[in-house]
Amino acid sequence: MFHINQQLLADCHNLGLLNDIHVLLHKNASLHWFILVPKTQHKNLFDIEKEQLNSVMNNAHLINDYLIKTLNYSKTNFASIGNVVDQCHIHIVGRNKDDACWPQPVWGNLPDGPSYDPIHIKQIVNDLNIL
Amino acid sequence: MFHINQQLLADCHNLGLLNDIHVLLHKNASLHWFILVPKTQHKNLFDIEKEQLNSVMNNAHLINDYLIKTLNYSKTNFASIGNVVDQCHIHIVGRNKDDACWPQPVWGNLPDGPSYDPIHIKQIVNDLNIL
Repeated sequence: MFHINQQLLADCHNLGLLNDIHVLLHKNASLHWFILVPKTQHKNLFDIEKEQLNSVMNNAHLINDYLIKTLNYSKTNFASIGNVVDQCHIHIVGRNKDDACWPQPVWGNLPDGPSYDPIHIKQIVNDLNIL
Repeated sequence: MFHINQQLLADCHNLGLLNDIHVLLHKNASLHWFILVPKTQHKNLFDIEKEQLNSVMNNAHLINDYLIKTLNYSKTNFASIGNVVDQCHIHIVGRNKDDACWPQPVWGNLPDGPSYDPIHIKQIVNDLNIL
């Protein structure tokens, strides 16, 4: 039985599954910060099965395109770090040159921000066809 | 004609080509910090051609395995950020719990460190079959 790490669940809204990979949205709404959690016991991204890694990359690509084309971010940041939470998870973050911690990466640098309106979260789930 | 960004060249040793992708090694030798630079004018990782993206991921996987199995790092960090240098480039960094900026990410947090012995750089180029 796979469980999402408690710290990730505390920090994020759990949006559901996209191509059998969990999709989370960080609660800090000052920018859109998605986190993918594949169902694996491996910790390092490159240790997971090839097919699952392909699904992770496909999901990251879908979310990248959503951030750029629908939410109008100028670029995205993409990373698998896991120094604090060691469960394998992948970040895809929408960035703009006037955002709350530009040009620094978000990890450890994003100040506290507003919360999401539940209607906006439902819209994201609907737009991305998350189950 | 493709040119590697000047800031990346100033910060890194240019090791050569692996599967037609440039491989750089950050000059700060306190940990092994590789940077891949695909020959593309696209800035965002997910805008590059699918075949080239596959090559980037394959190279990242090779370097990940080298960091873990040969250089004995406990894990790697993997990222495409590009907020400061906007040429598309991908980081693969060896991390240990006693390293110079654990558990923070290296970007903006790694203190100045020692330089590489040129013999060690030659060894890396040889080990990874970089041309």
